[in-house]
Amino acid sequence: MRIEIYSDVACPWCYIGDRRFERALSAFPHADEVEVVYRPYQLDPGAPTESVPLPRYLEGRFGAGAAAKMSQVVEAAASEGLTFRFEDALAVNTGDAHRLSRLAAQEHGPEVQRSLMQALFAAHFAEGKDLGDRATLAALAEGVAMDGKRVLGYLTTDEGRAEVQAEIEAARRLGIEAVPTFVFDGRYGVSGAQATSVFLQALEQVWKETVGAGAGSIGSDAGDAGCADGSCVS
Amino acid sequence: MRIEIYSDVACPWCYIGDRRFERALSAFPHADEVEVVYRPYQLDPGAPTESVPLPRYLEGRFGAGAAAKMSQVVEAAASEGLTFRFEDALAVNTGDAHRLSRLAAQEHGPEVQRSLMQALFAAHFAEGKDLGDRATLAALAEGVAMDGKRVLGYLTTDEGRAEVQAEIEAARRLGIEAVPTFVFDGRYGVSGAQATSVFLQALEQVWKETVGAGAGSIGSDAGDAGCADGSCVS
Repeated sequence: MRIEIYSDVACPWCYIGDRRFERALSAFPHADEVEVVYRPYQLDPGAPTESVPLPRYLEGRFGAGAAAKMSQVVEAAASEGLTFRFEDALAVNTGDAHRLSRLAAQEHGPEVQRSLMQALFAAHFAEGKDLGDRATLAALAEGVAMDGKRVLGYLTTDEGRAEVQAEIEAARRLGIEAVPTFVFDGRYGVSGAQATSVFLQALEQVWKETVGAGAGSIGSDAGDAGCADGSCVS
Repeated sequence: MRIEIYSDVACPWCYIGDRRFERALSAFPHADEVEVVYRPYQLDPGAPTESVPLPRYLEGRFGAGAAAKMSQVVEAAASEGLTFRFEDALAVNTGDAHRLSRLAAQEHGPEVQRSLMQALFAAHFAEGKDLGDRATLAALAEGVAMDGKRVLGYLTTDEGRAEVQAEIEAARRLGIEAVPTFVFDGRYGVSGAQATSVFLQALEQVWKETVGAGAGSIGSDAGDAGCADGSCVS
């Protein structure tokens, strides 16, 4: 089974949704047969390439007090064990971060891409790091066992930029206008940072349809010996 | 939050449901604030106190071929990573096993009771052990750090028997006629070995009602700065 997660590293609900999805996957008995692929999206393709304080950026974009209004997000993050520090965060164009994510998937596979995305989220939302700074990105890449020098070399070229752009345009053609969006086996979409149980239900449902019976629900009434439909009666 | 699990150690869906519930709990971010208590139930209070091969017992109770009809249960168990060996299992009265479970909860608390219940399920369904044999029960109790001698002494008396019986009668008065049944905070019942996502949804829902907002769902539309209802838009 393949799950594609469309997200932007600057999107707070994407980080929360990623954590909830991860919890769902940890409860899914067939997790080792699930491949997770991150797809790029940009909330603000015109964001500056030089970072600015996030509160100032948000107020410029959404009006006075915008940063202070993020309390629902902060609370939801805390409930998942994530610490958001909006006041310390830096807004910047996420194009290079997405190029790096693409490189991670291409050269190291989905597991490394996933670790990198989680490191990027944490760097942006919890650690006040500048995801527009290439040395910072290279250091984060080294943290997931990528070659920092190779990453720095890649980022200073335009390699991957057109491909990331093409993927974002493909997402828009698929009708994706908000993130996170989770696509299960190319067939089902789950939009938004839904509750963990919703992700788990989608995993169970798609697994059942793909692999067949016995895969999660209480099954048919084929049981006997006092036990049917997931219960035993006395 | 308190979850009461009504089950019988001789009930295959109880073992499967227990594993699914455990998976749900592992995905729940507030698991450390959940107390799990096992309540007794007996599918066959008149089961023999001397064990007999389970296939023979099932055919005596439910007719020829009853054991072979358990394939749905075996398949569901396998999908959860559990191995059922019905052909090697021994049917026996579960009264002593329930008395032991009660002792575990009383003297060591819910964590030990839970480990014991899982050991009892595995012993019965996977290992062909005789849960009517007191030395076997004492050995299983030692495996979860209980005092085997103390357990053996307890089991040879009638201690706890009336209390287990009273709990089973209370369950029937609550309307419980099939197991497993999961009762969430004394308010919601989930009947049967439902899918893991169903248990997780119940945990999220009861948590939200008990503790308040931000507890699992995508929340209200109070967000701002392009981010509301669990999504961010560009």
